Amino acid sequence: DYQHVQVPFEITLWIMLASLAKIGFHLYNKLPSVVPESCLLIFVGLIMGGIIYGLNDKSPPVMDSDIFFLYLLPPIVLDAGYFMPSRPFFENMGTILLYAVVGTIWNVFGIGFSLYGICQVKAFRLQDVSLLHNLLFGSLIAAVDPVAVLAVFEEIHVNEKLHILVFGESLLNDAVTVVLYKLFRSFCEMPTIKSVDVFAGVGKFFVVGLGGVLVGLTFGMTAAFTTRFTKDIRVIEPLFVFLYSYLSYLTAEMFHLSGIVAIIACAMGMKRYVEANISLKSHTTVKYFMKMWSSVSDTLIFIFLGVSTIGENHEWNWPYICFTVIFCLIWRALGVLVLTFFVNRFHVNTITSKDQFIIAYGGLRGAICFSLVFLLPDFHRKKLFIAATTVVILFTVFVQGMTIRPLVDLLAVKRKRESAPTVGEQIHIRFLDHLLAGIEDISGHWGQYYWKDKLEYFNSKYLQKILLREYDQPKSSIVLLYEKLERKHAIELAEAGQLGHAPSHPSLLRSHFLCSNSDRTVKIDKKLEDALNPDVLENIQEILARNLYRIRRTGPAYNRHTLPGESEPVEHAKEILILRHKSL
Amino acid sequence: DYQHVQVPFEITLWIMLASLAKIGFHLYNKLPSVVPESCLLIFVGLIMGGIIYGLNDKSPPVMDSDIFFLYLLPPIVLDAGYFMPSRPFFENMGTILLYAVVGTIWNVFGIGFSLYGICQVKAFRLQDVSLLHNLLFGSLIAAVDPVAVLAVFEEIHVNEKLHILVFGESLLNDAVTVVLYKLFRSFCEMPTIKSVDVFAGVGKFFVVGLGGVLVGLTFGMTAAFTTRFTKDIRVIEPLFVFLYSYLSYLTAEMFHLSGIVAIIACAMGMKRYVEANISLKSHTTVKYFMKMWSSVSDTLIFIFLGVSTIGENHEWNWPYICFTVIFCLIWRALGVLVLTFFVNRFHVNTITSKDQFIIAYGGLRGAICFSLVFLLPDFHRKKLFIAATTVVILFTVFVQGMTIRPLVDLLAVKRKRESAPTVGEQIHIRFLDHLLAGIEDISGHWGQYYWKDKLEYFNSKYLQKILLREYDQPKSSIVLLYEKLERKHAIELAEAGQLGHAPSHPSLLRSHFLCSNSDRTVKIDKKLEDALNPDVLENIQEILARNLYRIRRTGPAYNRHTLPGESEPVEHAKEILILRHKSL
Repeated sequence: DYQHVQVPFEITLWIMLASLAKIGFHLYNKLPSVVPESCLLIFVGLIMGGIIYGLNDKSPPVMDSDIFFLYLLPPIVLDAGYFMPSRPFFENMGTILLYAVVGTIWNVFGIGFSLYGICQVKAFRLQDVSLLHNLLFGSLIAAVDPVAVLAVFEEIHVNEKLHILVFGESLLNDAVTVVLYKLFRSFCEMPTIKSVDVFAGVGKFFVVGLGGVLVGLTFGMTAAFTTRFTKDIRVIEPLFVFLYSYLSYLTAEMFHLSGIVAIIACAMGMKRYVEANISLKSHTTVKYFMKMWSSVSDTLIFIFLGVSTIGENHEWNWPYICFTVIFCLIWRALGVLVLTFFVNRFHVNTITSKDQFIIAYGGLRGAICFSLVFLLPDFHRKKLFIAATTVVILFTVFVQGMTIRPLVDLLAVKRKRESAPTVGEQIHIRFLDHLLAGIEDISGHWGQYYWKDKLEYFNSKYLQKILLREYDQPKSSIVLLYEKLERKHAIELAEAGQLGHAPSHPSLLRSHFLCSNSDRTVKIDKKLEDALNPDVLENIQEILARNLYRIRRTGPAYNRHTLPGESEPVEHAKEILILRHKSL
Repeated sequence: DYQHVQVPFEITLWIMLASLAKIGFHLYNKLPSVVPESCLLIFVGLIMGGIIYGLNDKSPPVMDSDIFFLYLLPPIVLDAGYFMPSRPFFENMGTILLYAVVGTIWNVFGIGFSLYGICQVKAFRLQDVSLLHNLLFGSLIAAVDPVAVLAVFEEIHVNEKLHILVFGESLLNDAVTVVLYKLFRSFCEMPTIKSVDVFAGVGKFFVVGLGGVLVGLTFGMTAAFTTRFTKDIRVIEPLFVFLYSYLSYLTAEMFHLSGIVAIIACAMGMKRYVEANISLKSHTTVKYFMKMWSSVSDTLIFIFLGVSTIGENHEWNWPYICFTVIFCLIWRALGVLVLTFFVNRFHVNTITSKDQFIIAYGGLRGAICFSLVFLLPDFHRKKLFIAATTVVILFTVFVQGMTIRPLVDLLAVKRKRESAPTVGEQIHIRFLDHLLAGIEDISGHWGQYYWKDKLEYFNSKYLQKILLREYDQPKSSIVLLYEKLERKHAIELAEAGQLGHAPSHPSLLRSHFLCSNSDRTVKIDKKLEDALNPDVLENIQEILARNLYRIRRTGPAYNRHTLPGESEPVEHAKEILILRHKSL
């Protein structure tokens, strides 16, 4: 009785295939370090497509655009939004928006017009492709794909700013792509185009983008509010994170807003509150499942891309396809150069020419283009567009994706720092933020720090009271960080089997610490005091008190002349003994 | 553009409704302690059904049997199988099988024949319901529902044996129900019934049941084998647990075997190996997600049950419906009494009459009956059967479900022990197991312990080598348990902020321990030594060495004359100081 179980059975088998393919690649350690996983997966897809084609003698099923947009894309974008490093994202917001909006428009019109130019050459036999169709094609081929970018950039570990620039652009250009694609598509079906329609199109940018943000934030806040009440029923907490973000995506899509922007706004908006509300295990589950889901979606997308490539729905035209690839490269490079020129004039921390090259080179195309080209209304050159899109995707994923890592090595592009920032660094960064906010406030300059400070004030004054549980003290981020580290350390200790059951004497140590501390109390300016309220300060003192030994112990390692020898732990133990003796 | 997103949007909204309903109930603490959640959920469903009925003026959609069997039931059964306490389950296997197979057949024929008797009374106007139809109805109404049983028994905390008897029966009777239901259904459509068909039906029991076990174990072993290779790609580990168990269910259903039995066999088979292979976080995710999924499915099923009750697909016939309820109660009670009489003759640990009453009273019917009655082929009395099934379900869930807790209190049925067994108890249980296996071996009695021992031997000799990672030492269950406790303790310490950073001296203590230990070494018999191989012994010694303080500290609490006073930690600290001083 196969028909009865067909749908879930086949879905499960596809997911299984994807997971097994992933395991297979990782068994050979050398392969993933040379070839990006996305290339391997497309390759698997090509083989599978070939097998299906060979067996059935007809084209294998192409990826359904509905399945892609409704089921495969949301998990990846949710994962991207939830784990987005918010600090670099907001710091480079202006640059990212410039690339995403102006850059994408530049690419669309650049590629569209120059392909129209190519179509005028009689020898190529392409005179029947109109300007509007070329622009429509430009609008779908110009968009950098977040899935492809993430798949490649996660493996090459460039510095955080570069990563966020390329990745942020690929996410936010969704709003622009959606508007331009729908605009040109409706223009194609209209008999005449009025100038009113063009202006309406420009207005739509803001509606689609800001509408997406609004929908996302609404659902994000509702999610945070809901998790206030899950104290007695921890087990369904992770569900709300997924349900609300998926609803935000679907709602945005329903009103023709940008679903990608909505889900990112939702994830970034709720993250902070949800994490404070839900239990540690729920949080692990949320993180793990998000990663798992996005990883499977990702794998399925690339396999389907490969499968869909095989078949008879391509019309081959050398000049059009070659020029598409060339124009995609040229216009992106030009766009990045021109835009970066303007960006660098207004920033102290400029984008180097190496970074510019990687930004231009990292403009990978992926499954979004592919789904959009299949969604095109039927017209006689659709198969040509499909062929050109497939070639561009394969070219960017294979050629650019495989060469970008050697290029990054060759150019010695600044890499991501391996270690997480220390607590000391975090405190200093935070202190500087408050200082800069104060300076901006005094000088009357409404800059980034000023707004951040105002937002933080609004957050702690109103939002936290509504969205967080009452009995949960709103903790400082540093205290939270410390608790996280502490927890991690405890688990490590337990796993290594070194958990000592000796009682700690925080109270004794604390009084000792407080005495010595009062002598050298420093005057903390109003702003910092505001941020580090008494509760937080007490927390920090407790933490320091508890870890006084640890700080001392790590001390000697900084000394240039002593090596961390084996005698150290014994000395350290002696020190503790003496201290304890005194306290007893 | 609502149509585009309709399907996922509505699914998400239903799940959201279910989750919010759950939160709502838990906000009022008193409600869940009086009324079981299942009743409340059916009530919510009834209200929703009423609203839909009132607004549209037509019957609300009934629960689709396909959706129920393909998507809602598997998560619940998987959860049940994965968290099944395997020791009591296997210890009471014989009794459970007797209840599930003989008991269900008894109920089916009892209810079927006595309802046929009622149909012969002319005053009731039911002469057109044939014996076969009555038996078919009996086969679907006799099955105790695992979802309903779980929902009620999880809240009343009866002792483990009673729980596993009722719950195990409700799970394993699926095979019998499937066979009888399909048998009678095909008989209804046949012109004449040959005696060959009846014998084929009896043979089918074994095929359906054992086939399910076989399919489940095959997928379970494959799952365990697959997780051997996920070292580099931890993030998709949880996926395999879900994928393989779902595949086992679908495959079993495809071949008309018992899907429930298959998924339980798969879950119980893979659990041990998967848990050893996957990382701790993956394991948390698996557990959490299973619980979450089953909880949501559960909620949806009860809400749908309520919604489906409202409508116009009922035919009301007082005598038939009332007698159905009465016969369901009587035949179950009789069946339990008779079967328990035989069971008690062969067991030392008998089932008390109180327990018998709860077993009979706990035979709740639920969504499986409901789905089966809708799957019936159309005939003129189908609506009567639907009405009778609905009434039986509502009666058992509401009346029996709500009164079972007071009855358990009133009868003073033995409750579940609250605390987990201590490590000492575990060691003793294990020791006794080996002892009994040895006794059975010597006396030539092939009892339960003998087979368990043989299975354990086969497991450690062959299965573990194939299914577990090579670098993972196959650890003793006691060592694993200890590590689990240690980890839990560490997390608790970290969360309470009491993690001491003082170094522990396991090596020093260990040598000390080993010296003192060698004096009183006891002779361990061959069997025990086999089980506690050198690695395990060393592990246990290490553990004891590390926790020597702790054992000492907890010592005084056992003394009848001293209270665990506040002075104790100081004394304890002094003791440690002295010991440490010596060792330095």
